Amino acid sequence: LGELVFVGLGLFDERDISRRGINAIERSDFVFAESYTSIMPGFSVENFERLVGKDIVFLSRRDLEDGMGETILGKAMKGRVTFLVSGDPLVATTHIDLRIRAEMQGIRTRVIHGVSIISAAVSASGLQNYRFGKSVTVPFSIDGKLSEIPLNTVAENQLRNLHTLCFLDINVEKNRFMTINEALLLLTASNKKGTKNVISLDSLAIGLARIGSENETVKADYIKVMLGYDYGKPPHLLIFPAERLHFMEAEALIRLAEAPDAIRDMIK
Amino acid sequence: LGELVFVGLGLFDERDISRRGINAIERSDFVFAESYTSIMPGFSVENFERLVGKDIVFLSRRDLEDGMGETILGKAMKGRVTFLVSGDPLVATTHIDLRIRAEMQGIRTRVIHGVSIISAAVSASGLQNYRFGKSVTVPFSIDGKLSEIPLNTVAENQLRNLHTLCFLDINVEKNRFMTINEALLLLTASNKKGTKNVISLDSLAIGLARIGSENETVKADYIKVMLGYDYGKPPHLLIFPAERLHFMEAEALIRLAEAPDAIRDMIK
Repeated sequence: LGELVFVGLGLFDERDISRRGINAIERSDFVFAESYTSIMPGFSVENFERLVGKDIVFLSRRDLEDGMGETILGKAMKGRVTFLVSGDPLVATTHIDLRIRAEMQGIRTRVIHGVSIISAAVSASGLQNYRFGKSVTVPFSIDGKLSEIPLNTVAENQLRNLHTLCFLDINVEKNRFMTINEALLLLTASNKKGTKNVISLDSLAIGLARIGSENETVKADYIKVMLGYDYGKPPHLLIFPAERLHFMEAEALIRLAEAPDAIRDMIK
Repeated sequence: LGELVFVGLGLFDERDISRRGINAIERSDFVFAESYTSIMPGFSVENFERLVGKDIVFLSRRDLEDGMGETILGKAMKGRVTFLVSGDPLVATTHIDLRIRAEMQGIRTRVIHGVSIISAAVSASGLQNYRFGKSVTVPFSIDGKLSEIPLNTVAENQLRNLHTLCFLDINVEKNRFMTINEALLLLTASNKKGTKNVISLDSLAIGLARIGSENETVKADYIKVMLGYDYGKPPHLLIFPAERLHFMEAEALIRLAEAPDAIRDMIK
């Protein structure tokens, strides 16, 4: 009987996979990958195929939902299949569904974890992990309307003195990545219209770009200053810190993310 | 001028480092590692040294706090230094402090992220990332008294219909790891004494053991059943799910973590 191994590729390019992951690919009969790996900005298919000595079949997320999942399962009934996914493999619901279907068909499954933006962003920020509340995604606005969920999530976390990790929307088909500046404009505009004063131009924010690459950028400042900063190429994401900072968090933001000295006033 | 590169080793053994991390070690003049890597159960120093072709100097966290950090910084003033840490390097405050001190001395620093238990536990559970609230650690009790923080954190998250990731305490000096059963006994006993009914024997919990290894174990059930289960060797951790589950979360727990079918009643 066969097996299906989900392998995480990590964040940036073909050097971010673990040796455990490479070994699994080398032992496998078929290698599939989600073409969503386009969110790994430095990833070269040619280099990767040379590295592992295998041909890789790329599938879009739509392929997976439209029945290509069956192709993977068909191969995994008879042989060893690896399925490569950017970041950590089972954060996306699509892949959990595929894993459940495999197990229901009697296919043994296994996960080789990869570096996920969930943990790398926390680490890169210098903020303390246990002070993060629920995370949220800022979606592209539809007909100029912005979802209320991001601001509500930041507000709820602030009430509990917690930080908020904000993922920024990606449209894979259009190869469109929301930037830090786009997100800040959407959020501050939407905030003005409401009665809540969750995020203002004077709020502290942290912008993170290309996490996991050699030129990872982390910049902390008040939003009015952040709006004039160039973060470079995507992917981007944002963190809205709690209104109180731990001493070491403030030092990390000042020394490692060019935050202004004035944020020492936020030390609890 | 030199540089200090923090390299994440990942979760389980010497095969969990990325190629990016191995390349950085190969290029470096000095290699230090935190002996806290003892929490990587499969890690063999000999195999790792052979793999990277370098000798590694191991330091305890106490060494780092007691001035051995200065030794690392001294070497990094003149040459290329890599500092190896289990999981992702900058989740621990000790290492953020070292990075800040390096930057203040004009040493260039960089982080090569590793797989962290923060993201791998979420992925392994089958629960949805954006439904996790603040995480918490269950500490060993001191003189039979348990901290109120874990139960309060679970309660606050439940109010917002969020899951709670619970790390279990580790005493590195004594090589003591809190087990899932110890933690469940501590929490249910402490819950009985209080007025809150946050965690009862009828609550659903998820136990995770040896995440990142080939025999990663994930078991979901009511606490009264969980208490009779053998999770095997550490490290262990726990997740307390929200009182309502998404359809796919319930399916994942039933199919991938042997949860009872009755948890379908929790689907929102």
